[in-house]
Amino acid sequence: MANSAWSEKILQLLRRMNNFYLPGSCRPHCFRFEINEAQVGWVPPQVASLLARYPEVFTPPHGGAVSLCPSLDTYGRRSEAVDAVLQTMRQEGNLTCLKGWRDEKYSVMSKFSDPPMMWMERAATSLFGVKRYGVHINGYTVSEGGEVSMWLARRSPTKQTYPGLLDNVAAGGLAAGVGIKHTLVKECQEEACIPAVIAEKAHPVTTVSYTYEEEDGVFAESQFAFDLELPREFKPRVGDGEVQDFYLLPIDKVKELLATDDFKPNCAMVVLDFLIRHSFIEPDTEPCYQEFVAGLHQTLE
Amino acid sequence: MANSAWSEKILQLLRRMNNFYLPGSCRPHCFRFEINEAQVGWVPPQVASLLARYPEVFTPPHGGAVSLCPSLDTYGRRSEAVDAVLQTMRQEGNLTCLKGWRDEKYSVMSKFSDPPMMWMERAATSLFGVKRYGVHINGYTVSEGGEVSMWLARRSPTKQTYPGLLDNVAAGGLAAGVGIKHTLVKECQEEACIPAVIAEKAHPVTTVSYTYEEEDGVFAESQFAFDLELPREFKPRVGDGEVQDFYLLPIDKVKELLATDDFKPNCAMVVLDFLIRHSFIEPDTEPCYQEFVAGLHQTLE
Repeated sequence: MANSAWSEKILQLLRRMNNFYLPGSCRPHCFRFEINEAQVGWVPPQVASLLARYPEVFTPPHGGAVSLCPSLDTYGRRSEAVDAVLQTMRQEGNLTCLKGWRDEKYSVMSKFSDPPMMWMERAATSLFGVKRYGVHINGYTVSEGGEVSMWLARRSPTKQTYPGLLDNVAAGGLAAGVGIKHTLVKECQEEACIPAVIAEKAHPVTTVSYTYEEEDGVFAESQFAFDLELPREFKPRVGDGEVQDFYLLPIDKVKELLATDDFKPNCAMVVLDFLIRHSFIEPDTEPCYQEFVAGLHQTLE
Repeated sequence: MANSAWSEKILQLLRRMNNFYLPGSCRPHCFRFEINEAQVGWVPPQVASLLARYPEVFTPPHGGAVSLCPSLDTYGRRSEAVDAVLQTMRQEGNLTCLKGWRDEKYSVMSKFSDPPMMWMERAATSLFGVKRYGVHINGYTVSEGGEVSMWLARRSPTKQTYPGLLDNVAAGGLAAGVGIKHTLVKECQEEACIPAVIAEKAHPVTTVSYTYEEEDGVFAESQFAFDLELPREFKPRVGDGEVQDFYLLPIDKVKELLATDDFKPNCAMVVLDFLIRHSFIEPDTEPCYQEFVAGLHQTLE
């Protein structure tokens, strides 16, 4: 692929993953989702209509915001009241995203540094545009000659989301109350059979942040990215069945794959960030270098 | 300094360097600066009033924009016409920023990947909120035991801007038509007497982007950041007199200095990015980790 066609494919990926910021998105029609007057998400209009049926939990839209009722004044009360609504909606079966119910509790807060105000079922977060956090690991090896190769996973064909697509060697969402490094070590073990003694050597390098909208709602996400140099003789193995295979690929091949539709999009972003940090993409030869970096770090004001 | 006080100082730095995005900034009152209907900057209202005196060069504000007259239809004509206006304004002596005239031509374009539409004197770019690009080098050493120390420069007390403050080991603005790595090698040589054979080993790692307003106008900047591991026995030396001294400091000391007012602010941002990429700041112990990363990569839509 010619250089400029490759760059254009990467820009397309970044635009798609940040389409909530683009003209024509649902953003101007969304309601701020507020708890105690602090914004913690975005509620699309079609979701707001559904929530209106539960006035004991959600206030009617007012001043551009949908709020939790002030009587829900503790972490526990908020979490339970919203969960009860979501369980009802799930049983009604009208919302596709709730079919992917996972029984995983995610923290709801306006900033990562703030104390969580409630937890919410993972599958429901996009209905409220609640920001989700996760961990993604760039697994790679360095040959004796200094050549870098990257380990990629191919997702199981039976995965609920993005079946059969390429993924980072391990990755996972951050559940309420669980540490970042702890999540990393757990996911490395479960998904790729990377023992803790190796996984603990991963080092944090950045976050990759983006917000996109799909039919299911608004996906605002920040991924804590880690680099993990794996011993040359080590091979990740399929663990919990979320992955069907692992490949060790030269950087040129990885770069080529980034511009195809074979990658889970947010994993492609984490890999793009790796390629930039490790100077496999250089600003004198990649005119879109700065646009790439910007596209990897979009956040809502 | 307690951890949370340090984090708050860093957040303050990032807010100040991105104050153009904050409520209360001049942004809603600025005019888009357009060439051929493409936005290339932001003109504050007080500057727009001054430009109104040159209707043969600037169209009167219309639809929220100040534009170059369409008759200025080449790179050369635009550059010369605007330069003539700026020379007049400079002689009138009313604009502080033009007292810092440098005879350095900066490219004007809507994106770095677009062909430049004109050049503009560096000192004038803030009057038009034209985005400026530069190169900043993180110079560091690694001891035999693996301990990282960072080389910092202290700016000359006679520098026009930020005299006497701490700076990266070398840095410089990107002049029209000059390459990024070329600028890096030149600045390393001139400012820190780092020979080309060493400077060329610097590798690109990211961009750091921000937009702030001051009395002089709007400063929209993106810095191409490079890491340069210097040989242990090598010492940067004062070159062209822009620097008064160099220090080799342990990372803990650098981190402490970041939260003082002793750093040129954009250099502090480049160092903060270095500390994050090299895992000297970790997300499990720094609650504002993601906010830090976001604050280093703000760009105008």
